Order: sequence, then C-alpha cells, then structure tokens
Amino acid sequence: MLFAVRMTVNLPPDMDTDVRAATLAAEQEYAQRLQRSGEWLHLWRCAGQYANLSIFDVTDNDRLNDILWGLPLFPHMDITVTPLARHPSDIRVTKIAS
Amino acid sequence: MLFAVRMTVNLPPDMDTDVRAATLAAEQEYAQRLQRSGEWLHLWRCAGQYANLSIFDVTDNDRLNDILWGLPLFPHMDITVTPLARHPSDIRVTKIAS
Amino acid sequence: MLFAVRMTVNLPPDMDTDVRAATLAAEQEYAQRLQRSGEWLHLWRCAGQYANLSIFDVTDNDRLNDILWGLPLFPHMDITVTPLARHPSDIRVTKIAS
Amino acid sequence: MLFAVRMTVNLPPDMDTDVRAATLAAEQEYAQRLQRSGEWLHLWRCAGQYANLSIFDVTDNDRLNDILWGLPLFPHMDITVTPLARHPSDIRVTKIAS
Amino acid sequence: MLFAVRMTVNLPPDMDTDVRAATLAAEQEYAQRLQRSGEWLHLWRCAGQYANLSIFDVTDNDRLNDILWGLPLFPHMDITVTPLARHPSDIRVTKIAS
Amino acid sequence: MLFAVRMTVNLPPDMDTDVRAATLAAEQEYAQRLQRSGEWLHLWRCAGQYANLSIFDVTDNDRLNDILWGLPLFPHMDITVTPLARHPSDIRVTKIAS
Amino acid sequence: MLFAVRMTVNLPPDMDTDVRAATLAAEQEYAQRLQRSGEWLHLWRCAGQYANLSIFDVTDNDRLNDILWGLPLFPHMDITVTPLARHPSDIRVTKIAS
Amino acid sequence: MLFAVRMTVNLPPDMDTDVRAATLAAEQEYAQRLQRSGEWLHLWRCAGQYANLSIFDVTDNDRLNDILWGLPLFPHMDITVTPLARHPSDIRVTKIAS
Amino acid sequence: MLFAVRMTVNLPPDMDTDVRAATLAAEQEYAQRLQRSGEWLHLWRCAGQYANLSIFDVTDNDRLNDILWGLPLFPHMDITVTPLARHPSDIRVTKIAS
Amino acid sequence: MLFAVRMTVNLPPDMDTDVRAATLAAEQEYAQRLQRSGEWLHLWRCAGQYANLSIFDVTDNDRLNDILWGLPLFPHMDITVTPLARHPSDIRVTKIAS
Repeated sequence: MLFAVRMTVNLPPDMDTDVRAATLAAEQEYAQRLQRSGEWLHLWRCAGQYANLSIFDVTDNDRLNDILWGLPLFPHMDITVTPLARHPSDIRVTKIAS
Repeated sequence: MLFAVRMTVNLPPDMDTDVRAATLAAEQEYAQRLQRSGEWLHLWRCAGQYANLSIFDVTDNDRLNDILWGLPLFPHMDITVTPLARHPSDIRVTKIAS
Repeated sequence: MLFAVRMTVNLPPDMDTDVRAATLAAEQEYAQRLQRSGEWLHLWRCAGQYANLSIFDVTDNDRLNDILWGLPLFPHMDITVTPLARHPSDIRVTKIAS
Repeated sequence: MLFAVRMTVNLPPDMDTDVRAATLAAEQEYAQRLQRSGEWLHLWRCAGQYANLSIFDVTDNDRLNDILWGLPLFPHMDITVTPLARHPSDIRVTKIAS
Repeated sequence: MLFAVRMTVNLPPDMDTDVRAATLAAEQEYAQRLQRSGEWLHLWRCAGQYANLSIFDVTDNDRLNDILWGLPLFPHMDITVTPLARHPSDIRVTKIAS
Repeated sequence: MLFAVRMTVNLPPDMDTDVRAATLAAEQEYAQRLQRSGEWLHLWRCAGQYANLSIFDVTDNDRLNDILWGLPLFPHMDITVTPLARHPSDIRVTKIAS
Repeated sequence: MLFAVRMTVNLPPDMDTDVRAATLAAEQEYAQRLQRSGEWLHLWRCAGQYANLSIFDVTDNDRLNDILWGLPLFPHMDITVTPLARHPSDIRVTKIAS
Repeated sequence: MLFAVRMTVNLPPDMDTDVRAATLAAEQEYAQRLQRSGEWLHLWRCAGQYANLSIFDVTDNDRLNDILWGLPLFPHMDITVTPLARHPSDIRVTKIAS
Repeated sequence: MLFAVRMTVNLPPDMDTDVRAATLAAEQEYAQRLQRSGEWLHLWRCAGQYANLSIFDVTDNDRLNDILWGLPLFPHMDITVTPLARHPSDIRVTKIAS
Repeated sequence: MLFAVRMTVNLPPDMDTDVRAATLAAEQEYAQRLQRSGEWLHLWRCAGQYANLSIFDVTDNDRLNDILWGLPLFPHMDITVTPLARHPSDIRVTKIAS
C-alpha cells in the first residue's frame, strides 16, 4: 500500500555539531536500510528546500507510523501524509480516466 | 529531470454530461500516451479526493508546461509543481543523509 | 485499518430539488449499508456545519478510495483523509504515552 | 456529549530528558485513567505525526476544558476542538441522510 | 452551556429578490424567537461585514446543531463554532487567573 | 461601544516559575478590576485552549488599546480584535433580519 | 475615531452592463459625499488590484457599520476592518516609541 | 508616491531590558524625524496589537526599502508593503468610482 | 522602478468562445506593446499553471496601476504586487551581502 | 532553464555578531560569483523585507538544488521555488497571449 510523505526538516540553529552529524548519519543509514528492504520506494529532494518527498510501500498505517517515528530526524520534522490509491488512468489499471 | 505535480480537479456541477464524458476519455488517452512514452513516470490517486500526485520525467520546464497545458482537464484543475532533485540518501546517490 | 475522514458538503444553491432529495436519500442508504457492513465505523455531525467526521475501518487505501468516490454527494464534497495508527497510550496498546 | 479533539505536540528540542520522561509517563497514566472512566472514548495516533485524534464523551464544555487543561503535555500542545452531534444517517439515528 | 458561533453570509448575487426578502424575514423571526427563549443569548454584527458573532446557551451539542441547521440562511452560511467554558478570572468564578 | 477580542496565550516553556505566578496573579487582578468597572463585559475560556474570547464595552479604540496593552500577559499574547455593531435582528433593535 | 478598512471587489463576470455602470456611479457618488462630509478620510487604490485601503473617521462602530453596509458595491465586497488608535510615536502624541 | 506598510513587532521575551529600552527610544526618535521630514505621513496603532499601519510618501521603492531597513526594530518585525495609487473616487481625482 | 507582479488567470468555464479568443488576442497585443515600450521588462509562464510572473519597470505606482487595470484579462485575474529595490549583493550595486 | 526563487531570511536575534558578519560576507561573495557566472540572473530586494526575489538560469533541478543548499544563509532561509517556462506573449516567443 502506497503513501506519499513530505518531510520538512527544521534543525535548531544552535544544535550541537557532533549531535547533528551523528543524527544525519543515523538518518542516512536508516533511510538506506528501508530503501533496500523495499518499504521506502522513492526518496526525492524538493529542490532548494530542506524537505523531501518520499513514497512508502507498507503493509498498513501502523507500519508507516512506526517507520516515520523511527526516523532519527523525526523530532525536527514537519510531516504530511497522503494515502495513495490506484489511479484509473494508470496504464497498469486502464480504467476510465481520473 | 523530475517534477512532482499535484492536480486537483474541480468539474462544474452543471457540466454537460457528453462534454464531461468526452473530456475524461481524452484525459485518459492523453495520460496513458505520456505514460507509455515514459514522461509521465507515476500517476497515483490521492485516496478519497478528486486529485492525483504525479511524477514527470521531462527534459525541462517548458516541456513540463506544454504537457500540463495540454491536459484536457487543465481548465478545471488547480496544479502545484515541485521540482525534484537527487536526495543524498537515495541509495542510488549514497551521500550524507538529508 | 482506520482512517479519519472529514467531509464538508457544498450543494449548489440552485440544485434541482428532486435531484437533491434523491441524492440525499441515496447518500443515506449508501452510508447505512456501509455502517451495517462495519466499514463505516463512526459517523458524527460536526455541530452547526454541513460537515461530518467519520472513521472508516477498511482493508487498504484503494478500498477507502472506492468507498469515498462512491458517495452520491462526492462531487459536492471537500474531503480530507487522515490515516490513523495505534496510539501507545490506548489502553488496548499500553505502551509509553504519546 | 461528544467532542473530537486533535492534539499536536511540540516538545522543545532542549527539554530535560528526565522531565520529558516523567511528563510522558504522567501523560500516559492520565490518558489511561480517563479511558477507563469512559470519558476518553477513542485515542488514535495520526500516522506519522506527533499528533492524536481523540473522541471525548463528557457532560459539558467545562468538563472537557478541565480534562484538556489537566493534560501533563498541555503546555506543549496545539489543540483544536470540534463539538460533535448525532448525524441523521447514523444507523442509530436513522433520519433523512445528512 | 455556552458556544460562540460566527456566521458569515454569502448570498448568491442572482438570488430571486422575493425569495431573498422572504428568507431574511424568516431569519429574523427565527432569531428573535430563540432570543426570547433565551437560547440565543447575544447577537452582534461584525462591523462592516455580512457576518455576526453570536453566543448560544443550550443544553448540548445536538441542540446547538439543530438550531443552526434550522436557520433559514444556513445554506448560505460559513459557520465556525467555539465551545466556551468558565474562565478562572471571570469574577463569577474567581479562581487563579487565565 | 462593543469589541470582541480573542486572546491566545503562548508562555515560553522556560519562563521563571515565580515570574509566571506573579504575572498570572497580576493578570487576574487586572481582569477582575475591569470586569467590576464594567468595561470587560464578558470573559469566556475557549474550551481546551489557552485562549479566551472577551467582550469589551469601551468609549473608543484608544481606550480598548490602552486596556489590552496594559494586560500583564500582553507580551505573550496573539490578539485579534473585531469591532461589533448592533445587529438588526437583535430583539433590542428589531430591524429587518441580518 | 479611526478605522482602516480594506475593500476587495469581486464583480460577477456576467453582471448586466447597465446595472454595473449604475452601481459604479452610485458608488462614486456615495464615496465622494462621505469624503466631503469628512467621515471618509482617505481612499487609496491598492495598486494593480480591484481593492482599496480607506481610513474612516466616525463616531463609533455602528456608524462605520452603517456606512459600509450602505456601499452600493457592498454585496460584491470582501471587507476587513482594523480599529486604529493613537501611536505613541505619532509626533502629535510624542510618547515613548511603539 | 504612497505605500501602506503594516509592521508587526515580535520582541524576544528574554531581550535585555536596557537594550530594549534603547532600541525603543531610537525607534521613536527615528520615526519622529521621518514624520517631521514628511516621508512618514501617517502612523497609527492597530488597536490591541503590537503592530502599526503606516503610510509613507517617498520618491521610490529604494527609498522605502532604506527607510524600513533603517528601523531600529527592523530585525524584530514582520512587514507587509502595499503600493498605493490614486483612486478614481478620491475627490481629488473625481473619476469613475472604484 | 521595478515591481514583481504575479497574475493568476481564472477564466469562467462557460465564457463565450469568441469573447474568449478576442480577449486573449487583445491581451497578447497589449502585453507585447508594453514589452516593446520597455515597461514590461520580463514575462515568464509559471510552469504548469495559468499564471505568469512579470517584472515591470515603471515611473511610479500610479503608472503600474493603470497598466494592470488596462489588461484585457484584468477582470479574471488574481494579482499580487511586490515592489522591488536594489539588492546590496547585486553585482551592479556591490554593497554588503543581503 | 529559468527558476524564480523567493528567499526570506530569519536570522536568530542572538546570533554571534562575528559569525553573522562572516556569514553575510560569504553570502555576498557566493551570490556575486554566481551572478558573474551567469547562473544567478537577477537578484532583487523585496522592498522593506529581509527577503529577495531571484531568477536563476541553470541546467537542471539538481544544479538549482546544489546552488541553494550552498548558500551560507541557507539554514536561516524559507525558500519557495517556481519553475518558469516561455510565455506565449513574450515578444521573443510571439504566440497567443497568456
């Protein structure tokens, strides 16, 4: 099941530099593990902003919630979640247009 | 080059039913042609809304503009466009996390 | 899987009264069928507004999408969808508080 | 009488960890006491966000106010309150559709 | 129990003048009946706008909902509802300041 | 002359507790003095929020301004001001409905 | 007593041209009468928009309300009203800066 | 050339009191110098808010920019700027109403 | 003097096709005349939207107002205007960075 | 390919003055280097605000992203990005008006 998630990061300007570096490294490792497992399907940078648009493929809402709460950067994020469904014009679906 | 485009459709309630059916059919044909050509990479329904989230892979802004202005439903759409860039945590990019 | 859905209805002031009555009757029949099937778990009126807050229990996003697109009043609705997950303080879950 | 309450939590990033842990524990205990008493009817996590959607069943506005002001996390919350009423399509109400 | 309700009226510019006059007269009669019954406690014009701020004293949410849905102008209104509670600095309450 | 004023209080989480207690006590004393003088006509808590809805009866804008700037909590408040006028359906006014 | 009022005009595109011309002429006559009487102190065009910023000098809220409801264009206007007070740095007031 | 400028001041709660007093005094002196020079035409307090509405009469955009950037309180201000033009109903202009 | 102007066009869906074509042709002729005169400095399409971002170089606010009110599409436009000034980092200005 | 970028700067009031001066100098040097290279096409001050409107001419989204993330002030900026396309009324394009 697919979800579009937009994450906007607001790191405190006075964040300890070591803590910052460790958190970013943990975030990358976490994100790449989930990409390799296939749950984090797409991860794009919103050009020019400290934000990303991601597509998740997960079993259900609870799994999505656990993944996002597990993000090392979660406490510094504004997150919006859009559940996605098959679109009738998706060539894999070929039903009457949207 | 990738763009995330969210299209929200507002059809006039008193739209002529034949015009409506023809426009929707033209919209589907248009969308599926561009999916087959590879420019319309993803087309997802925002669950429960007359809106979709699409990802386009196009040469430049002008091409994106031409595609969106060419949508049969364009006059009835609110559209937001987010240019996407490679994310440093994208396993195909493997740079320091976002 | 649970979703909170807020539906705000905007009927055109000049809607044909017969069409209006038939649509409202179809809407009630549709809503009550889904309540009896258990998918439409809760249906509350937002006091003083032509809007409702509903909780759906469905298999996945696509099913939710089909249900909402099937609403007779769908063309006259503004809909927001919030996917819900188990809360750690839910006495059925008993984990560390929110 | 039912109220839908959405609570978004914004904990200061530099909150003392002991104070934070004690506050979260107190929050859980408080929430579970009210769930057992029946006033806190539903408590759902808004998937992927530090927010919950709750349904309260209370005698009146003043009781709701006292409950929410009593939340240990109250000083760190943005709260919206929607009073709910019986919906005519609620199968327990069976009046003309919404 | 008190509620603050703000009603903004948007009458269609092309509304039939007789229908308009009849609706406004019915609205006044309805509002004055409820003022005399004591449920419609205060009715103020928001200066310079086709909007009013009203305070209702009703038994519960359902009664408030019935009153507002019964307004002849209801189909042409945007309504926001704020449940009110006793304020600790209200001299009739004399508790620790807000 | 009447004004509706909504005050939302945002106290800094790390405010000195003594300063906080003194400010709140001063706020209560100030509010109750103005209620007894008749200028602060109504003071209601917006249920579940650190906000109040107040109605002031003052000679003019300058007097309202002086009162609000004199609030001990003023530096921690977001304030909106709505000037009120007689409503034609107010039974004390009995003119053509709103 | 001063009020800042911003008026944004939205004339229906299909408004009868004679009605439109008559309304605009009545609006000008009305505005100029009030300017000559001194109540409509300033009337500026918000450059590039069908909107104006006006300053009114009136006895009280009710008078302002009557003036604005009397505008021939009132049914086609979005209006915001800001009550103004003396500013401490106004050289006619010469008190401690804002 | 006229501009309407709304300035909302957000002073940090923990601002050093001496710095605060000096900044406010400098702000008053600055504002009064420009009022005497005629460039700062009007300065009104938005009643009940730490904000003002000002009208500037300046040669061009660059001069306005220099004036506003020169405000001692500038770093603590949210500023919106509305360029003003002659209104056709301004009795000094006497053209077709707005 | 420079202004950034964003124009969003909302043509009524049921606009007469001849009127529409004539208006668009007049709009193009008007825009190109002003580009040739040098007042309409830049005219860019906001990709994927019926909107443009334009830069005007005009003598003053009144001239800008006359130009925008003269647009054949003006009655169908939402317009925002941002007065521009020299930026200290503009290599033609070479002052301390923004 | 052109992008319009609006950058709003929010420097922390308690930012170390040396760090601030160094960052601003680095920002200017960075901006002027990119203007000389031709990628930063226009840089205008939004009059009266700590914000600028810039036009970039870059190869693609990724290049834009790298440029903006490279801004020394990036951590203190709110940025919006609007991809631009050729406008049919641009005299260099001479197609049917917008």
